[in-house]
Order: sequence, then structure tokens, then C-alpha cells
Amino acid sequence: MQTIGYLGPKATFTHLAVTAIFPNAESVPYNTIPQCIDAVRDGEVDLAVVPLENALEGSVNLTIDYLIHECSLPIVGEIVAPIEQHLLVHPQQADAWKNIERIYSHSHAIAQCHKFLHRHLKRASYEYMASTSAAAKYVSEHPHEKAAAIGNRLAAKEYGLAIAKENIHDYDYNHTRFIILHQQPCELPIDHEPDGYKTTLMITLPKDQAGALHQVLSAFAWRKLNLTKIESRPAKTGLGNYFFIIDIDQKLDDVLIPGAIAELEALDCAVQVLGSYPYYTVKQK
Amino acid sequence: MQTIGYLGPKATFTHLAVTAIFPNAESVPYNTIPQCIDAVRDGEVDLAVVPLENALEGSVNLTIDYLIHECSLPIVGEIVAPIEQHLLVHPQQADAWKNIERIYSHSHAIAQCHKFLHRHLKRASYEYMASTSAAAKYVSEHPHEKAAAIGNRLAAKEYGLAIAKENIHDYDYNHTRFIILHQQPCELPIDHEPDGYKTTLMITLPKDQAGALHQVLSAFAWRKLNLTKIESRPAKTGLGNYFFIIDIDQKLDDVLIPGAIAELEALDCAVQVLGSYPYYTVKQK
Repeated sequence: MQTIGYLGPKATFTHLAVTAIFPNAESVPYNTIPQCIDAVRDGEVDLAVVPLENALEGSVNLTIDYLIHECSLPIVGEIVAPIEQHLLVHPQQADAWKNIERIYSHSHAIAQCHKFLHRHLKRASYEYMASTSAAAKYVSEHPHEKAAAIGNRLAAKEYGLAIAKENIHDYDYNHTRFIILHQQPCELPIDHEPDGYKTTLMITLPKDQAGALHQVLSAFAWRKLNLTKIESRPAKTGLGNYFFIIDIDQKLDDVLIPGAIAELEALDCAVQVLGSYPYYTVKQK
Repeated sequence: MQTIGYLGPKATFTHLAVTAIFPNAESVPYNTIPQCIDAVRDGEVDLAVVPLENALEGSVNLTIDYLIHECSLPIVGEIVAPIEQHLLVHPQQADAWKNIERIYSHSHAIAQCHKFLHRHLKRASYEYMASTSAAAKYVSEHPHEKAAAIGNRLAAKEYGLAIAKENIHDYDYNHTRFIILHQQPCELPIDHEPDGYKTTLMITLPKDQAGALHQVLSAFAWRKLNLTKIESRPAKTGLGNYFFIIDIDQKLDDVLIPGAIAELEALDCAVQVLGSYPYYTVKQK
């Protein structure tokens, strides 16, 4: 039985991803991304799950920066989960959601449901909370207020709320990515097949010059290594210095990726493998 | 006298950026990024300032997605501002900050001060708020609590708090980028020289294939057009479809950038100029 630390509080989207992929694990909420990463480093938990992209409660920047500058742990897996927002009300108000006067949620969640709210709840006012689950908790504790929370299915369950209206987010195909961290590279105790594999590299260019990135990508292109993500990020060493995070859509092999890395190092790039790992997609409900 | 909408509430980092660059303008807070962008489209305000990168209160995704899918307005300027976090207390507690028992802030702000808090306020508990300015407001209203907020200089001023400890963030060189939007391309009413110019393009590749991005970058590389940012973003049309946001470090000229765009279009890429604009850096205090 493994324990899994995640970016809390309970019923966040990170928690939802953990319960979908590790249904039998014991999960432990942490309040910040650094605390969650420290917990796996210090052996308090076996694995940590933190958001990497597109998350409401966390940001790419914090996760990547903390891994690079403070606490270097390998990425051992990834979870891709759809962002589904629902209108949650106290069960006493389940049939009267159109009379809602006040909506509680994280500001990004409210923004993600902009069109729905504009059309159906135009007169409602908004109250911004630190997380969607804090909003659900508030609504559960105020049964007589004409209030709704916007949040996920797990928040409804956790706080005994009714889903008055499902899938009120403006866009389908909106996904959040989470990474799974462990003290060292490992096989994950997941009993179904992954949807694929990825290798994530961090590449620092020798200096900022026109075409340097193009040269870097040549090393991948002529080997037909397919990149599924590329992002430049300012290094914390001064303005104008950058590094790149690149995802390659395959496992770290013995020939092609090591060959590309050797070529990049010969060009004076610094290359660090952040992980080579399986990814799992959470299906829409 | 122009009016400027910004992502509020008052005393956010977006507000701080607005006051630094437009000291004499009337500024109007909006609660979400879509509301702020709609306000400039509808002529309620002359300009809108919203976070594009690295922000506490907003996310790149929301801003770019809303511009691309909902409300196409040109970027007419950019503000780059350092992230400086301070420990703010009620003036009655100014000399006793080491006795603080409870810290109120946005969860990312707390994470950005992880090392300071770990070293100096190890026993304090955290209370997560929707924004750093909501935290400052709370502390100002509870003078007898042994409480501090983490936030910026403007929040201290706005809510009458004392800065007990300056610059408690873990990293210098941490910057936030904000974009300025207007109904059409325009000259900004700013009386000092910009720090430079940028052109931002959105490029959609014909299909996800190994080396396609490399081919795209060739169009810039051989013209010696320097890219200062590149980011791949999933399109909202299904998994595996991407577009790229690219920043070029110069104004849209008559020859080189149009030439690159024509070449990309010949390769079946869709290219959209999101703006060609000056950028202004806010100096550290």
C-alpha cells in the first residue's frame, strides 16, 4: 500500500487525478507544491503528484522551478485529466439553481465558465475563494444561502453537494497535466497499460542568439524524434537567459535520444533528463 | 485622461504594474481576465492590462485562449515587472514580526517565499486566500491577531500595513509579464522610451509531425530573426493538436517578418500576428 502526497486541499483537481489513477492508495494533501515535493524527498510519502500545466491551483513555473533549483527528483509518470467544471449546490437548493444569487469559486474556474454564467446566471455575483474545494466547503456550510460553487465531481462528493448542472465549462479539450515524482526512477504500481511514454529534457543554450534554438531542434528533427511540447522559460540568472523544456514522445532509448543529447552537449548546451516515464489519460465521465 | 482596466482586486501585481507605467491614469479593477478583456472591447475602458506569464492571480492560458477564441484584440504593449514579496503586518505589530503565528496569502505567494518562511517563521501556520491583496485586507481588519500577509508594496499602502520584512521571496530575477490591449493597434500614451519592441505570432502547424517545428523555426533562423520566447500550446480541437506562440525581438518590419510569414503560409501553417508593440520594464525598488 503506497502513500501519495498531492497538492491539496482535498477535492482539488490534483486529488481527482490521484483517485482516478491510484484508486486504492492512501493520499495525503499538502498545501503548497514545495511542501508536496519535499514530502517525497524526505520519505514522508512514496510518490508526489503535482500539477505541471494548465492547473487552477498550481503553476508550471513553481513545479519546474522547484525541481530544477531546489529538489531534483525524477519524473516517474504523468497524468492527463480533462477539466470538467460543474455547478454545485446544497441539496436543499438542487431544484432551484436558476435562482442562485452568489457563486463561489476559484477565479480561474469562474473564468472557465464565463459563457455559461453570462447566459444562465447573469445576475449572480461572484465570490473568489482560494480553491474550488474551499468554495464547495463554504456552500455545504451555508445551506440557506442562495449560493452555488463551481468545482469538480470529487468536491461534490466530499462536501455532500448536488450537481445542479454538469459540464458548465466553456471548452471541452481543456486538460490539466500532473507529474508523478519519486525519490528515484521506478516502475509505477498501476495495473493498466499507459497511453504512451515521454521523455522530458531541460536544455540550457550557451547564449541567446538568433537561430540557436533552431540548431537545437535540428538534433531532434533529423533523428525523427517527435516533440510534443516545447517551452522556453527565463532562467533565474538574469534577464535574457533562457532554458527550454522539451517533451519527446518516446521512452529514453539507447541510441537516438542519447545521440541527440551528445550532439547538444558538443554545441555547449547543458542537457538534463528530467524523466522518462509513462503517461495515463483520465477518461471523461 | 485614459482609463485602464486591470485584473483586480486592487493592489494585485497587475495593479502595481499599471501604477508604475501609467501613474496618472484612472484604473478600474475587473474580477476575471475575460471581464477585463471584454471591457476594452466594449469601450468601457481605453486599455486593458492582463497577466500573460508567471502571474500569481492569472494564467497565460486564460489570457491567450480568450484572445484567440473569444475576443481578438491586438496587443499594443507589454510590461515586465519583478515579483517582490514582502511580509506585511498591522502597524501595531510592526516590531514583533518574529512572533507571527499565522500567515495569510495566495498559495503561490507563500510558495515563492518557502525558504524564508522555513527559516524564520517555521512555526507559523498558513491560511490561503484568493489573492495577496485579500490577505492584506484581512490583516488590516484584524489588528490584534498575530498575523502577517505576504504581498506587494501597493497592498501595504492600500490597506495601511507596515512592511515588517522586505523582499522575502526566494529568487530575484522572477518576473511577471503583462500585456496591454486596445481595440486597435495604437501608440501608447507613455512619455518615456520603451526598453525595446516585440512581435508576437501565433502559428498553427498543418499536422503534428516530427520536425515540423524545426522547419517553422528555419524561416526565422536564416533571416536572423531572434526569438525570445516559444511555447507550444494544445489547441482546443482535440488531443495532439498544437499551436505555437512565438515572440520575435523586433518591430514588425516590411521585409523580414512578412517574408517569414509568407514562407510559413506556403508550408500550410496558419499565422496570426497577435501584436507588434513596445515593452516597458518596471525597475526594482
